[in-house]
Amino acid sequence: MSQLESAVKEIAEEMRQRPDRGEVATYIPELARADPNAFGLAVVDADGNVVYAGDADTPFSIQSVSKVFTLTIALGMVGDRLWNRVGREPSGSAFNSIVQLERERGIPRNPFINAGAIAVTDVILSGHQPREALGEILRFMQFLADDPSITIDKAVAASENRTGFRNRALANYMKSFGVIENPVDFTLGVYFHHCAIAMSCRQLAMAGRFLAYRGRNPSTGLQVVQPDRARRINAIMLTCGHYDGSGEFAYHVGLPGKSGVGGGILAIAPGKASIAVWSPGLDAAGNSHLGRIALEELTKRMGWSIFGA
Amino acid sequence: MSQLESAVKEIAEEMRQRPDRGEVATYIPELARADPNAFGLAVVDADGNVVYAGDADTPFSIQSVSKVFTLTIALGMVGDRLWNRVGREPSGSAFNSIVQLERERGIPRNPFINAGAIAVTDVILSGHQPREALGEILRFMQFLADDPSITIDKAVAASENRTGFRNRALANYMKSFGVIENPVDFTLGVYFHHCAIAMSCRQLAMAGRFLAYRGRNPSTGLQVVQPDRARRINAIMLTCGHYDGSGEFAYHVGLPGKSGVGGGILAIAPGKASIAVWSPGLDAAGNSHLGRIALEELTKRMGWSIFGA
Amino acid sequence: MSQLESAVKEIAEEMRQRPDRGEVATYIPELARADPNAFGLAVVDADGNVVYAGDADTPFSIQSVSKVFTLTIALGMVGDRLWNRVGREPSGSAFNSIVQLERERGIPRNPFINAGAIAVTDVILSGHQPREALGEILRFMQFLADDPSITIDKAVAASENRTGFRNRALANYMKSFGVIENPVDFTLGVYFHHCAIAMSCRQLAMAGRFLAYRGRNPSTGLQVVQPDRARRINAIMLTCGHYDGSGEFAYHVGLPGKSGVGGGILAIAPGKASIAVWSPGLDAAGNSHLGRIALEELTKRMGWSIFGA
Amino acid sequence: MSQLESAVKEIAEEMRQRPDRGEVATYIPELARADPNAFGLAVVDADGNVVYAGDADTPFSIQSVSKVFTLTIALGMVGDRLWNRVGREPSGSAFNSIVQLERERGIPRNPFINAGAIAVTDVILSGHQPREALGEILRFMQFLADDPSITIDKAVAASENRTGFRNRALANYMKSFGVIENPVDFTLGVYFHHCAIAMSCRQLAMAGRFLAYRGRNPSTGLQVVQPDRARRINAIMLTCGHYDGSGEFAYHVGLPGKSGVGGGILAIAPGKASIAVWSPGLDAAGNSHLGRIALEELTKRMGWSIFGA
Repeated sequence: MSQLESAVKEIAEEMRQRPDRGEVATYIPELARADPNAFGLAVVDADGNVVYAGDADTPFSIQSVSKVFTLTIALGMVGDRLWNRVGREPSGSAFNSIVQLERERGIPRNPFINAGAIAVTDVILSGHQPREALGEILRFMQFLADDPSITIDKAVAASENRTGFRNRALANYMKSFGVIENPVDFTLGVYFHHCAIAMSCRQLAMAGRFLAYRGRNPSTGLQVVQPDRARRINAIMLTCGHYDGSGEFAYHVGLPGKSGVGGGILAIAPGKASIAVWSPGLDAAGNSHLGRIALEELTKRMGWSIFGA
Repeated sequence: MSQLESAVKEIAEEMRQRPDRGEVATYIPELARADPNAFGLAVVDADGNVVYAGDADTPFSIQSVSKVFTLTIALGMVGDRLWNRVGREPSGSAFNSIVQLERERGIPRNPFINAGAIAVTDVILSGHQPREALGEILRFMQFLADDPSITIDKAVAASENRTGFRNRALANYMKSFGVIENPVDFTLGVYFHHCAIAMSCRQLAMAGRFLAYRGRNPSTGLQVVQPDRARRINAIMLTCGHYDGSGEFAYHVGLPGKSGVGGGILAIAPGKASIAVWSPGLDAAGNSHLGRIALEELTKRMGWSIFGA
Repeated sequence: MSQLESAVKEIAEEMRQRPDRGEVATYIPELARADPNAFGLAVVDADGNVVYAGDADTPFSIQSVSKVFTLTIALGMVGDRLWNRVGREPSGSAFNSIVQLERERGIPRNPFINAGAIAVTDVILSGHQPREALGEILRFMQFLADDPSITIDKAVAASENRTGFRNRALANYMKSFGVIENPVDFTLGVYFHHCAIAMSCRQLAMAGRFLAYRGRNPSTGLQVVQPDRARRINAIMLTCGHYDGSGEFAYHVGLPGKSGVGGGILAIAPGKASIAVWSPGLDAAGNSHLGRIALEELTKRMGWSIFGA
Repeated sequence: MSQLESAVKEIAEEMRQRPDRGEVATYIPELARADPNAFGLAVVDADGNVVYAGDADTPFSIQSVSKVFTLTIALGMVGDRLWNRVGREPSGSAFNSIVQLERERGIPRNPFINAGAIAVTDVILSGHQPREALGEILRFMQFLADDPSITIDKAVAASENRTGFRNRALANYMKSFGVIENPVDFTLGVYFHHCAIAMSCRQLAMAGRFLAYRGRNPSTGLQVVQPDRARRINAIMLTCGHYDGSGEFAYHVGLPGKSGVGGGILAIAPGKASIAVWSPGLDAAGNSHLGRIALEELTKRMGWSIFGA
């Protein structure tokens, strides 16, 4: 068994047994039903080997992890013009704060807080029907993961849509400044649906490979984005990927990563691995509690921190 | 000439000729006198070679770059207890903002904004006379740079002390919450003096080596800090080292770095290099304009970004 | 001619001639079309005499002045329980700020900023159809003004509804905290429509009489509200009636008053007069520029300031 | 016994017996020693009669009530130029908040929050020695109260000076914007000392007469300020006199008033009475708990609300 295989198995085993599991999100029933004992981990290395353990094949709601991929699509569509609509700085506040938007006249601080991801979705939507835009996002995920079976959990999307008053506030607020161009209901419809994509750790780790390997899908050899774009997306994941817990994640784990309220985290060890972890219990900042701990352990054992071996 | 030597020479030459040079800080006369045409760059690689160009031997006021070293000292003194007094998250606001302190009851967001660095200085001061604490900081810098000639520019410190009302506000504000324990004048005295340390790019790059090489000074072999501490300091530099321009720096340069209002930046390429750059003109976020551009260029040419080659 | 008659005529004449007229609101075409040269003033004294001058019979969009009357209705419906949903303190920020809502978990600071007035409208709506609630508000205005011809300008309401993204943000934000109970579109529908009530100065001054005369309509003798409630509504008008210009209005005019972005102001001289003034040009705080000046002049000439003769 | 005499006696009796007494300020030992059972009330009517009850002759630390008088002095010195240094709007935040100062570049919102009162003190100090400025303030109080025995409690001033880090933060912060012109220690020295003036209810009610009677001291006939200035000071007391409880005070009491953390409140019934009340227990907003209730009762019984009989 390779060092990576041992590490993955042992970490998964250790996480299974820990009593501290965080709190499962309860704001919609579909997420509240998640099993707090679930834990999955999958790593795709530079040679395309997939190493996994635990519930690595159980699909979960990727939620905000989808924002890495919508950012990639929007950059592909409009390039650096995207940065007229959204910033690239950590927000210093919660994922759904509206305070910063007032101070900065409707421009969200970065593409990974809710407001920023809604603005990015609005860019993708431009000139399309919601159904088309959503299809494009889903097909991109299927393509990256090399798995056409990935779907959207419509019950999750419907629940989010029904209860997402705070996101609706953010979107209307941005629209009052002209930052959102499409009808708010269209943009939010696409947003809620791409957050409701269901994927397993294995699928998610596969989908993240291009960020680890200079923008290229190492198995097909296809260049998804240019190398400098991959680097820059990683940089934004590092500084902004965990909301107001981004500093903590960088400090403890030392990898670019993006978390979702469904308990998933995609983390990138540039040149070395694309990693997905899932455990539904969240910490106070809304990030997977055991997911973060598992990644810290894995990074330490493998010497993968970007801040030094 | 090695690839690194070529890169350093050519970048320095290019920077010399650029017309856009930012704005030299003018809030004290000692900084306002800096030559906007100055530019220096020094790189120490893993083998201990020093490659430099331009005004790499001209001392400048390191200002906030000193905060990397006071953080290191304070962690050495009190370990993780330091994090009871200061956070590790990006602030999402200007280097001297007081708003966040009110919301978070006097606990600064990170050790690199002014409030946080003052709190760190207060930790170093505890139980000592200001003169002793300052001597310790200076000797640490001399030791790291292997150069006993490094001194404090007392005229700069005196000017800062005379005009530093905003820092005095921050310190008193923290003291009202008990976060500052020593008399405010003592803590600020030490703070203003360590910010007034004068160093050249060469000296600064030498001093930063332990962060690039797993906490060890590669020439002496002495372990300055444990490897995980070096990694963690790098992580904080990445997320918080350029105030509200930290996201931009990560995006463009892709290295942990800490800037100072004197125009200096210390940047770390883990395992590869310790880099110091100096150009007095600042950008809107208060970071060296050409310094950042030079580092972006260097990182790209050398493939040193921590976010992928 | 009585002293009041002279004052009203001369002030109207003076205002007609002033070159400084403020800026007409332009965010919807219906308001943008208002004649900047229009000026109307009407005063109903304790004996029921109506003294007026200028365009005192021209209907204008009362906008936020309606919030005085919806507050009165809501207090009549739920009494002091209203204060669980909205505060009674000046906001210290703009009429449409959302920052305070985040800090205070969705509870608006007072019933006269937009968020607070939307929350009050939601209380009136509870258990009714929007059409019924709106009918009740309109009939209350007609009853108070003793004029069944008062109507709602549906083009204004439709424009507000089409462009009111910031109010929609506020309403959704409050709904995310449970402060809004009805569907946001219902509540906002009623809100936009009662803001679109069109009244003349004469009608508005008539409608305000109960606040000047201990809660009683002096011509019919009907007690609209108890005296202490009238006093308290006046108190809120004084401290909160002009958004972030409330302090200025109290300082210069010295009367409880409520302004609207249509350029109208209702002011109350307790025991002495109900006053309505209209001039469409606004000052920087969004209050009628000449309206405020005219009221300052009138108060001074009549010795009506509540802060001393 | 007149209606006023009965009201004062009965209210004092009732307040004596209430079990709810608020919390005495404890941040300095001198205030913490105040007897929570103390209660005093004094009213000076238009004929110069003084009606009083309870501990109306016990001196207490007037604290922020002094800000009414320093405002009066500063307006006398520089007139409306004062408003370049301080605003006239309610702050919407706590008495010692620094957030607003950052947003508004060092200009305090009004002269009654701490920052504003420090700026006003700085105006009075200009061109004088602290001792002279303080002497002038004290003599003004003695003159207004017609009582040369009024003194400053130096132990209170010394305690405030020793522990007033938050006020020191505010002052330094304003100085960083140039709003404070004198050395911070000088300005704060005068500020802490005038807040430490000790007066009884009787003395305070006497001192406030000019605000109730058109700027004139009714017994001597001396015009202290012009009538419109008295009105305007009353207006600021109404909108800003109780920090973030100003709206509540206006709503319940309906009089201009200024409270102090020592438990005193000066309230003005224009044309009718100058009122001082004292009870050391404070409510959550830092205003005298029983003082406010007593004033509400008195206003109701006497029909003195400025918002209608």
